[in-house]
Amino acid sequence: MTLLNAERLYAMMDKHGLDAIVATSPENVTYSSGYWALSQWTRRGPQTYVVWPARGKGAPRIIASASLLDLIADQEISVEDVSKFGSFFVNVDRDASLDPAECRQAVLYGLSDGGSAKATLVATLKELGLSEARIGVDEGGLAPSLGAFELEACQGATLVPAFEVFRQARAVKTEEEITRLAKAAHIAEASIDAALRIARPGVTEAELSLEFNLETIRQGGLPVLYCIGTGPRSAMPNVMPGERALCVGDIIRFDVGGRFRHYRADIAQIAVLGEPTPKIKTYHNALLRGVQRGMDLARPGARASEIFHRVVETVQREGIPHYQRSHVGHGIGLDGYDLPDLSPGSDHTIEEGMVLCIETPYYELGFGGLQVENMVVVRRDCVQSLMATSGELRVV
Amino acid sequence: MTLLNAERLYAMMDKHGLDAIVATSPENVTYSSGYWALSQWTRRGPQTYVVWPARGKGAPRIIASASLLDLIADQEISVEDVSKFGSFFVNVDRDASLDPAECRQAVLYGLSDGGSAKATLVATLKELGLSEARIGVDEGGLAPSLGAFELEACQGATLVPAFEVFRQARAVKTEEEITRLAKAAHIAEASIDAALRIARPGVTEAELSLEFNLETIRQGGLPVLYCIGTGPRSAMPNVMPGERALCVGDIIRFDVGGRFRHYRADIAQIAVLGEPTPKIKTYHNALLRGVQRGMDLARPGARASEIFHRVVETVQREGIPHYQRSHVGHGIGLDGYDLPDLSPGSDHTIEEGMVLCIETPYYELGFGGLQVENMVVVRRDCVQSLMATSGELRVV
Repeated sequence: MTLLNAERLYAMMDKHGLDAIVATSPENVTYSSGYWALSQWTRRGPQTYVVWPARGKGAPRIIASASLLDLIADQEISVEDVSKFGSFFVNVDRDASLDPAECRQAVLYGLSDGGSAKATLVATLKELGLSEARIGVDEGGLAPSLGAFELEACQGATLVPAFEVFRQARAVKTEEEITRLAKAAHIAEASIDAALRIARPGVTEAELSLEFNLETIRQGGLPVLYCIGTGPRSAMPNVMPGERALCVGDIIRFDVGGRFRHYRADIAQIAVLGEPTPKIKTYHNALLRGVQRGMDLARPGARASEIFHRVVETVQREGIPHYQRSHVGHGIGLDGYDLPDLSPGSDHTIEEGMVLCIETPYYELGFGGLQVENMVVVRRDCVQSLMATSGELRVV
Repeated sequence: MTLLNAERLYAMMDKHGLDAIVATSPENVTYSSGYWALSQWTRRGPQTYVVWPARGKGAPRIIASASLLDLIADQEISVEDVSKFGSFFVNVDRDASLDPAECRQAVLYGLSDGGSAKATLVATLKELGLSEARIGVDEGGLAPSLGAFELEACQGATLVPAFEVFRQARAVKTEEEITRLAKAAHIAEASIDAALRIARPGVTEAELSLEFNLETIRQGGLPVLYCIGTGPRSAMPNVMPGERALCVGDIIRFDVGGRFRHYRADIAQIAVLGEPTPKIKTYHNALLRGVQRGMDLARPGARASEIFHRVVETVQREGIPHYQRSHVGHGIGLDGYDLPDLSPGSDHTIEEGMVLCIETPYYELGFGGLQVENMVVVRRDCVQSLMATSGELRVV
């Protein structure tokens, strides 16, 4: 199992003339090594790095805080070498026989302390023979006090920003990533079903949200996005579930998705409590046609901007003549918004292995919000849905 | 209800000679305005700011993406003025009568577009008469492409880093913050109880964790930290619940806490399945005495480094002579690690209104981990626990 598309990362490094690339943001650290460093994900500030030399230029290395080394021993990590910074007190029971994970921990805790995160990074680059190299540094996770300029002052290397290089690499998913994304999408669908099972007049958004999040947990996910709005509140793009009680005729808009093994889902569905009005039916059908058009067009080689224009045109023609959007979708992976952007200004081309959220949200204050958003993977000859549902209007 | 300790923030601005301070990281934006800007919290990169002029130097202002304005209309926000960047398409039903929140949204969407986040920030500083001022910029959430140097190039202002100024302000909590922190602590305790209700031989860490997180959701929280390790795996400081099945005699270590209305909990408890060994009893008692000593000493005016030494000494004297730690606690709030640090190198002094996690973890590979961690608020004459439990060893 590997999350990293190593061939693609090497190709990106070649393209940008990099001798090595350094991951610093949580998404890129987990992507390039499998290492999920708890504090880096749950807080802002804690530093963890992965140094990846270009092909043939040495072995990759994790640079981790002493306080987080146990997770390296207990996770499926694709990078063998580790440098440690800081100290952390862990004892060893001399009478116990240690299992392999405990032995690995003992070895890791015993590594020499590189000092600060920055000092350890600089020393590691030197050890890897990269002191004079051209190095791409993911600027997304570097602590402000560790700005690229400061690093550069420490040595003869040329440092260039590489956050976008990682985003480009991550845009095409490995099969392991696609499997996790599909599971995340299924969890979101099951969670919508769980919420809708209790939908009846008088039930609040908060109650729907509770059922939604409980099901996400039961299915092995973690809640992240749970915009669930009812009636006119469904028009709020980022609606946080509140105390409004459901009435007959209400729209229920779900724009939702949690994490499964670090990978995100982002899907949308619309349900109506009782008989939908003709306006709801017409508008929703137009939005669904738009997404279907996007799914038809998202083939390897298609231009993202072209898909945008065709999708918006379709929605306008099929029932919402005034429909306007800034984008009709985006990639998804460890981050909720991976490349490509399906927007008019996008210069991306669709590639095999991209996972896309294709979406046509519509917000109207005083009326409500409607939205179709499907997760799909681009295969050589087709677009494969990662979902069991297709975006049809649901009547409950 | 206000999260912000405005008097303290003003005092910090005076102390550091600032004409204004700019919040950029999610914690500081929410703290200074009440505004919880979804994408900023769930992803890395999206920009939201709050500009707070010093006392008498103008009204504070939120700078928000057009795509997140609905949440301003729907949340309890303590800042009235808003500047917008970017565009977002929302329609209005001309036949509907809008409620106040919808009217507010319509007004916000109608604000002029300031362009990029950075351009809008620079323009806002100018409008507020701060073009030549000394401005503290929280460097924690500024997108790398928005580095302080670049901002400075745009105008005559002097920019100084202010992430630490905000941390110092946030260290003393308002009553609303304390109420939320107490609820977060209670949710964590209830979640431990829920997990322990199913503890019996054969039950896995993952199953305990599932019950833990379900209870956190039921109680209105969101899972963040759920390190739950059994037997020798309890020695892993950041243990992620796995497939190990409980055996009689096992330690179960919980180092856990979710979020409640954006505020964190971080507590620890130890349970043993069956009769604890003398070593477990002795060691746990020593750790508990250490925390109790910390709670006795954490009075306004006490030095954090002094508390550290007395707590470690107590644990050593009461049963773990070789006990060593890098810290014995920390503040908590919107972030899991607020000031002060209870560490030997800390120069902090305890103040009334600080909320502390006082902790004495002990990790021994081959044996297991033990830990007491209690959340308390420092009052004028006493330390008040925010928990129903006191850190006693639990036998299940």
